[in-house]
Amino acid sequence: MPEVWSAPVRFVECDQQGVAFNAHYLVWADEAVNAWWAARGLPWQALVERGVEYFVKASSLDWVSSARYGETVAVDVGPAAVGRTSLTLEFTVRVGDRTCCTVRTTYVATVDGRPTPWPDDVRALLSAG
Amino acid sequence: MPEVWSAPVRFVECDQQGVAFNAHYLVWADEAVNAWWAARGLPWQALVERGVEYFVKASSLDWVSSARYGETVAVDVGPAAVGRTSLTLEFTVRVGDRTCCTVRTTYVATVDGRPTPWPDDVRALLSAG
Amino acid sequence: MPEVWSAPVRFVECDQQGVAFNAHYLVWADEAVNAWWAARGLPWQALVERGVEYFVKASSLDWVSSARYGETVAVDVGPAAVGRTSLTLEFTVRVGDRTCCTVRTTYVATVDGRPTPWPDDVRALLSAG
Amino acid sequence: MPEVWSAPVRFVECDQQGVAFNAHYLVWADEAVNAWWAARGLPWQALVERGVEYFVKASSLDWVSSARYGETVAVDVGPAAVGRTSLTLEFTVRVGDRTCCTVRTTYVATVDGRPTPWPDDVRALLSAG
Repeated sequence: MPEVWSAPVRFVECDQQGVAFNAHYLVWADEAVNAWWAARGLPWQALVERGVEYFVKASSLDWVSSARYGETVAVDVGPAAVGRTSLTLEFTVRVGDRTCCTVRTTYVATVDGRPTPWPDDVRALLSAG
Repeated sequence: MPEVWSAPVRFVECDQQGVAFNAHYLVWADEAVNAWWAARGLPWQALVERGVEYFVKASSLDWVSSARYGETVAVDVGPAAVGRTSLTLEFTVRVGDRTCCTVRTTYVATVDGRPTPWPDDVRALLSAG
Repeated sequence: MPEVWSAPVRFVECDQQGVAFNAHYLVWADEAVNAWWAARGLPWQALVERGVEYFVKASSLDWVSSARYGETVAVDVGPAAVGRTSLTLEFTVRVGDRTCCTVRTTYVATVDGRPTPWPDDVRALLSAG
Repeated sequence: MPEVWSAPVRFVECDQQGVAFNAHYLVWADEAVNAWWAARGLPWQALVERGVEYFVKASSLDWVSSARYGETVAVDVGPAAVGRTSLTLEFTVRVGDRTCCTVRTTYVATVDGRPTPWPDDVRALLSAG
């Protein structure tokens, strides 16, 4: 899985326990998925212009270590499953070689709020990995 | 499961898609778990004073509808599993009767960063639900 | 100045220094201004429907004490100045009787991104305080 | 004033008006001030180890344009005033050559929560600009 996004942990992202608060991992995964689409020549805005939005349907996070202020998190992304209207991506959030959290998120394509099949060219692109 | 926390959706929590951004559900669950401990007479700070911290080990979120600005989210919480060093809680985040998201989060008790069994009185309290 | 908004300080809002991070005061002021408009029968969405948006032009914050987790912040709001296209509000963010921060924010009404005079009925309402 | 910090605007930072929400400018300024100290060989943690913390005393923000998703914000920082216990920095937040917001923030050095003069070596360093 290629690295698609990276950023220093922000001071505001760390809580009184001295570690990055759990919710921020979903923010980082969101930036990573946007970068992942863009790297495929299909930025989020281009989908919206075609009337297709995608929403997060489900997400699971498993932490094995913490990220702290002063460290830089990197996110590797790869497809885990491509469905008719859905897409599941796996994200590895890490500090150097140390994994902090594995995130698996399932997105659903929608038109006017209803699930819709991915357009053919998008599906071809997703299946290519 | 009793309602333990509620708040109007904040403007800053909503994104350009017009719905509450997914990461905020973990923030709401965090406020809810703190309220849940406090309602049991054991606020987060009391545990810390005893040298016990708890960290989020894993979390899964399943969305069935969106929360929007102008709506008020409420969170019901109940225990799903009590282990030797862990605790899994289930949260229902809803707007009125409409469920938005089910969150299941597993916490691990730690001392100096290492998993530790819940103190006996805490376990008794957790088992009481 | 009447209290228009109140909320417990959230855990995620507190940083490693053990106090609410400064940026959150602008979030609280934003919730307060929305409540202030709504209390005048003119919710933010109603303005948007009339084609008028307002943007923050300037904001100044002066802190005299900190808000901490476990405390509840309340925000009092009152108009400080009403201009042709602008409105300056003063916010007092406090924990009980203890003031934490005074915020003064100037908003500008816009149509299509350009400053526009407040509609007459809105100005009448603003001048009424 | 040198550029000390830069980052792409995050999706989560943009609101339903399609622009970066105002509170995030204080987050960006905070990352910039930390980078500014670090570039002077005096990271925030080094001050803490010496028992000195600094808190934000006052902050003013003036917006002239908006930052949007897809754009990258850069922050230039320079000292505006150095007092006995205080330090005022000026931040220019911009997208390329276009200024979005000028932030002026006054910090106060504290020991045990009380204002304290900057240590001599720190003051020498601040006066050097």
